[in-house]
Amino acid sequence: MIRATVWGENVHEQTSEVVREIYPKGIHNAIADGLAEDKDIQTRTATLQEKEHGLTEDVLNDTDVLLWWGHAAHDKVEDDIVSRVHKHVLEGMGLLVLHSGHYSKIFRRLMGTTCSLCWREAGEKERLWVCNPGHPIARGIDRYFEIEHTEMYGEPFGIPVPDEQIFISWFAGGEVFRSGATWTRGNGKVFYFRPGHETYPIYYHDDVKRVLKNGVKWAAPEGSRWVDSAPNIPVEKAPEPITSWGESVH
Amino acid sequence: MIRATVWGENVHEQTSEVVREIYPKGIHNAIADGLAEDKDIQTRTATLQEKEHGLTEDVLNDTDVLLWWGHAAHDKVEDDIVSRVHKHVLEGMGLLVLHSGHYSKIFRRLMGTTCSLCWREAGEKERLWVCNPGHPIARGIDRYFEIEHTEMYGEPFGIPVPDEQIFISWFAGGEVFRSGATWTRGNGKVFYFRPGHETYPIYYHDDVKRVLKNGVKWAAPEGSRWVDSAPNIPVEKAPEPITSWGESVH
Amino acid sequence: MIRATVWGENVHEQTSEVVREIYPKGIHNAIADGLAEDKDIQTRTATLQEKEHGLTEDVLNDTDVLLWWGHAAHDKVEDDIVSRVHKHVLEGMGLLVLHSGHYSKIFRRLMGTTCSLCWREAGEKERLWVCNPGHPIARGIDRYFEIEHTEMYGEPFGIPVPDEQIFISWFAGGEVFRSGATWTRGNGKVFYFRPGHETYPIYYHDDVKRVLKNGVKWAAPEGSRWVDSAPNIPVEKAPEPITSWGESVH
Amino acid sequence: MIRATVWGENVHEQTSEVVREIYPKGIHNAIADGLAEDKDIQTRTATLQEKEHGLTEDVLNDTDVLLWWGHAAHDKVEDDIVSRVHKHVLEGMGLLVLHSGHYSKIFRRLMGTTCSLCWREAGEKERLWVCNPGHPIARGIDRYFEIEHTEMYGEPFGIPVPDEQIFISWFAGGEVFRSGATWTRGNGKVFYFRPGHETYPIYYHDDVKRVLKNGVKWAAPEGSRWVDSAPNIPVEKAPEPITSWGESVH
Repeated sequence: MIRATVWGENVHEQTSEVVREIYPKGIHNAIADGLAEDKDIQTRTATLQEKEHGLTEDVLNDTDVLLWWGHAAHDKVEDDIVSRVHKHVLEGMGLLVLHSGHYSKIFRRLMGTTCSLCWREAGEKERLWVCNPGHPIARGIDRYFEIEHTEMYGEPFGIPVPDEQIFISWFAGGEVFRSGATWTRGNGKVFYFRPGHETYPIYYHDDVKRVLKNGVKWAAPEGSRWVDSAPNIPVEKAPEPITSWGESVH
Repeated sequence: MIRATVWGENVHEQTSEVVREIYPKGIHNAIADGLAEDKDIQTRTATLQEKEHGLTEDVLNDTDVLLWWGHAAHDKVEDDIVSRVHKHVLEGMGLLVLHSGHYSKIFRRLMGTTCSLCWREAGEKERLWVCNPGHPIARGIDRYFEIEHTEMYGEPFGIPVPDEQIFISWFAGGEVFRSGATWTRGNGKVFYFRPGHETYPIYYHDDVKRVLKNGVKWAAPEGSRWVDSAPNIPVEKAPEPITSWGESVH
Repeated sequence: MIRATVWGENVHEQTSEVVREIYPKGIHNAIADGLAEDKDIQTRTATLQEKEHGLTEDVLNDTDVLLWWGHAAHDKVEDDIVSRVHKHVLEGMGLLVLHSGHYSKIFRRLMGTTCSLCWREAGEKERLWVCNPGHPIARGIDRYFEIEHTEMYGEPFGIPVPDEQIFISWFAGGEVFRSGATWTRGNGKVFYFRPGHETYPIYYHDDVKRVLKNGVKWAAPEGSRWVDSAPNIPVEKAPEPITSWGESVH
Repeated sequence: MIRATVWGENVHEQTSEVVREIYPKGIHNAIADGLAEDKDIQTRTATLQEKEHGLTEDVLNDTDVLLWWGHAAHDKVEDDIVSRVHKHVLEGMGLLVLHSGHYSKIFRRLMGTTCSLCWREAGEKERLWVCNPGHPIARGIDRYFEIEHTEMYGEPFGIPVPDEQIFISWFAGGEVFRSGATWTRGNGKVFYFRPGHETYPIYYHDDVKRVLKNGVKWAAPEGSRWVDSAPNIPVEKAPEPITSWGESVH
């Protein structure tokens, strides 16, 4: 059983009638419901408004894969909580960053780059091509899938070179985008997945749900949770016998 | 002519007699003097104690490659200056991170990982092996070079997978370390190079100087300075004609 | 249950008394016995001398992970069989390449580089450092493990940059080597692991056996078996309606 | 001055009236003429029909960057010549692989994968997006450029993960493709660039010529020409004193 925690900023759901109609229980719950279709995935949610944004040490210790949805309130996320999530990712917790989460503090901290992109909100068609139909994240998708109405994200996308390119999008308006890509940071597997927007029912789309379920399974930790520190190895613990030489500032 | 700026925190040189004896003009000036042996490299220095740490917009605009030496005062570097250096690296300025700079704010921000390692200060011997003798950073080095007395840094080194592995170190005490590695972040080339310590005369070593000169040339920008932003592409500017559909939260 | 096939060239075992004494059932059987300690791994062996080198379509279809041991007879392996193994790796079969297998036809074909290295046969000590103790291939190993007597392999190692660096070796004679590294090619996961030699009992070493068991589990296919072909997509099958224009040479 | 050699198979130019009309001097000469617009690039051509395909040791020693155009006659290229080109790339010669060259022996040998893709010959529109406008290969291109009529290549493209993604194409018929990508193999820089077809005047297109000129400059060797071999390092040449132990099969 993989333990997934869906984090949602839960802001537009409160402020926009349009969004509330599409996602009456909030975007995070729609995502969690999609994951729960897979009986190997156990889901919970957390939101910005909760104490510690719902991301306490206990919750993160109990999470194999965290999904991150945010858009309007990236700068409302406390730096301490970002540092805590960061530490857990480096230790081995998987992370799925969704759509406008490209600009979240946690994604930018992990990438080290701007994470910028071009965008247009015109409800145009998107076709996501699979770059490797044998990849576990693409399981069950054929050559491509389509989203009839979506926001456009276009290149250049300011990311470090991905470990693997999973999806590339074609947009009716003429742009392309690296819509699905993976990285490893420390022991954590990171998957960025573009689809998703507040004013379109993207998270009810069968193939989007399928990719998220696949992504959670892919990102679940395989090894032990571990993070590097900076231990001093004293002379007497050196694997080979040596004697100390010279001065020190320590 | 490549314009190199050597940044030094210049702290141990003020507080430690041992360090001052080895580097009477400061470590940054020793490094700059080594670079200046190459007449294609024009050098300047900047230090923590200067206004804006000596790293104003003007200085960075006038810098092709920045070298970063710090150890005791990483947390004294202002976040705003780190952000400025970060932006310049992403735009295309080269960056050489030296020795204990592995823990500098700028390196950690670019890597997105802990950048931790093991260490021991025993003045032991290090032998740096060249992983690819044809690489421009290794030009003029044969199969390896040695440093008779140095601090040890050992694996695990908490970095993302390098684009290229240039050097791996063997230590007399029994450890190994990925001592020279490169990454691209945005348009900036980043080279981490391990040797260097306050209490040993590392920056007078011929092969260390050679690698730094090679590294500066390698990291100098090849393309135009550019950084991605997040432009909106309105419907009427879409490359293909489309009509807008649906609601918006913007 | 993961189905592992251990391929051995089985040459030195026939020609050298020294080797036969250490590996009376052949190196391939020693490796297979080590894997079989894990009850999630089901093993079989295949050798150069068998029909089609024991690597028929049926065997490969029935193999999740292939382990490759060869040294003296790389050029005796038929190109057609290499092409068959290659196809299965690209489709998703895992591959572990052991020690002198760095010069096997299959490894060189997958890497596209020389795969050369330096070497010395002096029975010296090797210490393998773990670059990421949380990696599933390193599970159960602490910071390092040692092999008391082994052949030395040294840098430069003529490989493309690995996806992940798992182990780096320290040798008593003064060299270092990237002893454990991974790549993905097509859907196949490839793990190169350095230890192993005919005249030392390396494959009875607990930590070597542990890494091989871990490696088999890591390399087992996660997705569906798939290999790209070069399908023509006729105009009438284009996802967007287009009309044909211009001449053709086909 | 960079010395570029343009290799063309020069087959369709002999057999197809359509191709001959567009490229009366052959595709290779059209490419070479485009490069020669840059006075820092010195060009020569070589073709399949010449002795040793025009790629003698002397020619390759005198070549900084080789451009490879082939389509109908990949299997007519002698394996020995492929091995020779391979060796020169690993030593440091740059290589630009053009369009249908994705299926050339040299590209497949360097990549180790199928290099397959989807395709359609319908003269549709292609728009090549720049993934990083600051990259030297994209110098002088704005956000994208268009080719009005071209053959379509679509994902999945069976390549190892590129070091850098330079261009991604959008096609009117609905597909996308990783049209510009780079790899390093040994010391050689490899750039695959998709545009180009026999029956369209692609190599007269200003932006295509610009990218080829940029690509040649990018791929020119920076370091020394070097290829790894497999030297034995005898015990007495070990950097650290050791004594030999155990048996040998050599």
